[in-house]
Amino acid sequence: MNRLIAIVTDFGLKDGFVGTMKGVIYGINPQSVIVDISHDISPQNIREGLFVLESSYRYFPEETIFLVVVDPGVGSHRKALLLKAEKYFFIGPDNGIFSFLYKKEKPEIIEITNRDYCLPEISQTFHGRDIFAPVAGHISKGIDYSLMGRKIDNIILLPGLVPEILPDKKIMGQIIYIDKFGNLITNITENFLNNRDITIKLKNTIITGLSTSYGEVSPGKPLAIIGSSGYLEIAVNHGNAGDLFCCHGGEKIFLLEG
Amino acid sequence: MNRLIAIVTDFGLKDGFVGTMKGVIYGINPQSVIVDISHDISPQNIREGLFVLESSYRYFPEETIFLVVVDPGVGSHRKALLLKAEKYFFIGPDNGIFSFLYKKEKPEIIEITNRDYCLPEISQTFHGRDIFAPVAGHISKGIDYSLMGRKIDNIILLPGLVPEILPDKKIMGQIIYIDKFGNLITNITENFLNNRDITIKLKNTIITGLSTSYGEVSPGKPLAIIGSSGYLEIAVNHGNAGDLFCCHGGEKIFLLEG
Amino acid sequence: MNRLIAIVTDFGLKDGFVGTMKGVIYGINPQSVIVDISHDISPQNIREGLFVLESSYRYFPEETIFLVVVDPGVGSHRKALLLKAEKYFFIGPDNGIFSFLYKKEKPEIIEITNRDYCLPEISQTFHGRDIFAPVAGHISKGIDYSLMGRKIDNIILLPGLVPEILPDKKIMGQIIYIDKFGNLITNITENFLNNRDITIKLKNTIITGLSTSYGEVSPGKPLAIIGSSGYLEIAVNHGNAGDLFCCHGGEKIFLLEG
Repeated sequence: MNRLIAIVTDFGLKDGFVGTMKGVIYGINPQSVIVDISHDISPQNIREGLFVLESSYRYFPEETIFLVVVDPGVGSHRKALLLKAEKYFFIGPDNGIFSFLYKKEKPEIIEITNRDYCLPEISQTFHGRDIFAPVAGHISKGIDYSLMGRKIDNIILLPGLVPEILPDKKIMGQIIYIDKFGNLITNITENFLNNRDITIKLKNTIITGLSTSYGEVSPGKPLAIIGSSGYLEIAVNHGNAGDLFCCHGGEKIFLLEG
Repeated sequence: MNRLIAIVTDFGLKDGFVGTMKGVIYGINPQSVIVDISHDISPQNIREGLFVLESSYRYFPEETIFLVVVDPGVGSHRKALLLKAEKYFFIGPDNGIFSFLYKKEKPEIIEITNRDYCLPEISQTFHGRDIFAPVAGHISKGIDYSLMGRKIDNIILLPGLVPEILPDKKIMGQIIYIDKFGNLITNITENFLNNRDITIKLKNTIITGLSTSYGEVSPGKPLAIIGSSGYLEIAVNHGNAGDLFCCHGGEKIFLLEG
Repeated sequence: MNRLIAIVTDFGLKDGFVGTMKGVIYGINPQSVIVDISHDISPQNIREGLFVLESSYRYFPEETIFLVVVDPGVGSHRKALLLKAEKYFFIGPDNGIFSFLYKKEKPEIIEITNRDYCLPEISQTFHGRDIFAPVAGHISKGIDYSLMGRKIDNIILLPGLVPEILPDKKIMGQIIYIDKFGNLITNITENFLNNRDITIKLKNTIITGLSTSYGEVSPGKPLAIIGSSGYLEIAVNHGNAGDLFCCHGGEKIFLLEG
């Protein structure tokens, strides 16, 4: 038994926080296999972390442990969680980042309370190192996850993860993430679209039709496409939609037809 | 058989694209060993990716698989390639990034067409995850590379990789890359230099003589040196040549003597 | 015998320098296990590298090899070092970055002079690749470290690592590091504090009392806390102390009481 550990944090890569967590993990399980998903989540931005985790986790092998530490509440009374879904484990602070799992995966929920599986000394400011990394290390070796604490029923759930259906049947979504290429990812999934003849309004721009590749429009022009994460995206061929539309995340987007 | 996989992309490390590709690879080959070369190639900048790959690949062990995904043409009709050179494999879109290999390594060229070695569903926008990562995963386990598709003869080749010899025997090169320290790397290799008494012109500055270490000139002064990648570089001792000369890549540089 | 290798550099992740070093290491020890601590140390900033290394190394398993390449003096006559402490190995240029180890760990010091364990060709500008990575690769396989060169007694030591005790018994420390969240880390350790009723002066601001979590003060307000590395830190709840106090590192901070 040697489960893969995949990590999402907002720690960045400069300060050595992530390397320190890995040092702790290798100390517990010298055979560890660790994959970085992202450490550049904007500081304390739960929604960004949620999107990056949700877009990637299904592509990992069964039994992968996702160690997800975006932790504005470190040192307060927020819970430390271990979620056991059908195929995966998720470990991290209770801050809403696992909202998307709650309905979809119906995970078993453990509040981590057993300090036997944490570092001997627990700091006030770095539970990634002192609690979450060691628990992940132990789980990766096959230790029974139910030993980590006590079963609970609820976790914090974030609002606004799905678009609203307005009284006139139009759909109001929002930009939930802007990727490195400036693509604007919305919270509208393909199943909200009845056909490809869609009409979208973002700020004062109307975009019509669903493209199947960036190259379908002229360079510099915007397009709508179902992105690789399964969400409707606004992109610009050979350009940056975030810059073109001055978006920073959170903006509303309307699906007027389709 | 467990071949090392080394990755070059322009995906950045924030969005989770690279982690997702690794998840796919570990799903296919749980014993994978993966090295990141760079994920910070400027978006869609083929020449930068080429330089970084060319500077690094010879230092990897034989049989390494280079997974190189800078892919402005994703979703269009650009080919998906697998190159088998004497010692290495190279996998990625056909966009010119493998130009330097074509003459030097005379690789066998396979167009990847066999979807049995790709993910079951292939998106329009993320072939790194859906095509290139799974093919690399299968090759890393020792699957016969010729099963991936059909043999072809040509790949896209980029112009301007070597300097021009002018009618007066002077040599006109260009800045092909600027590294993190601001060093200006040219496309002029050591074999264009007859001796160490060179005279170089960059913009309005004349640099004379070839240094063997940065410390040979006073702090803040520019120097010419053969860099670690084997190319002539312009550097500034304890400074940043990119800032000093206001270079952004593509600038011409003249070898007047030597 | 397969010792973990953990790396600190100022190479950044764009240029492929780090990936190249790993390629060299895997060529020597195909079973290598490598952890990145940081590659984003500010260019040639020895003190930053020292802090990141000092904060993280104790969390790694015994026998870990720390490969630490911040190397403004590459190509000059600065020594190449291998330090053998009780539990760990440290490899890198002699530039002061190992100062904190010298008294605390009393390591055996080897000057690396044996080129049998380096790459056949040693460049003027990239000893990380040509000397330090190959030595780390050999040590990771269990080669006797004393073969790498000759024993020496001294290394370069940096001044100013500990705070000054002023004639009036007040303590004058300095900001030695600013982390990603803008927390200002000082060189004042807990043992300089007699009690929790401290009074700190930073620029024109007085901070009183030692907090045990960021949330103890109102959002936007500064606080003093013993950070995860054991040093006194100035932080801002839900904010960025570096921005609030316009600090860039090196600023003085006074412990007036406590």
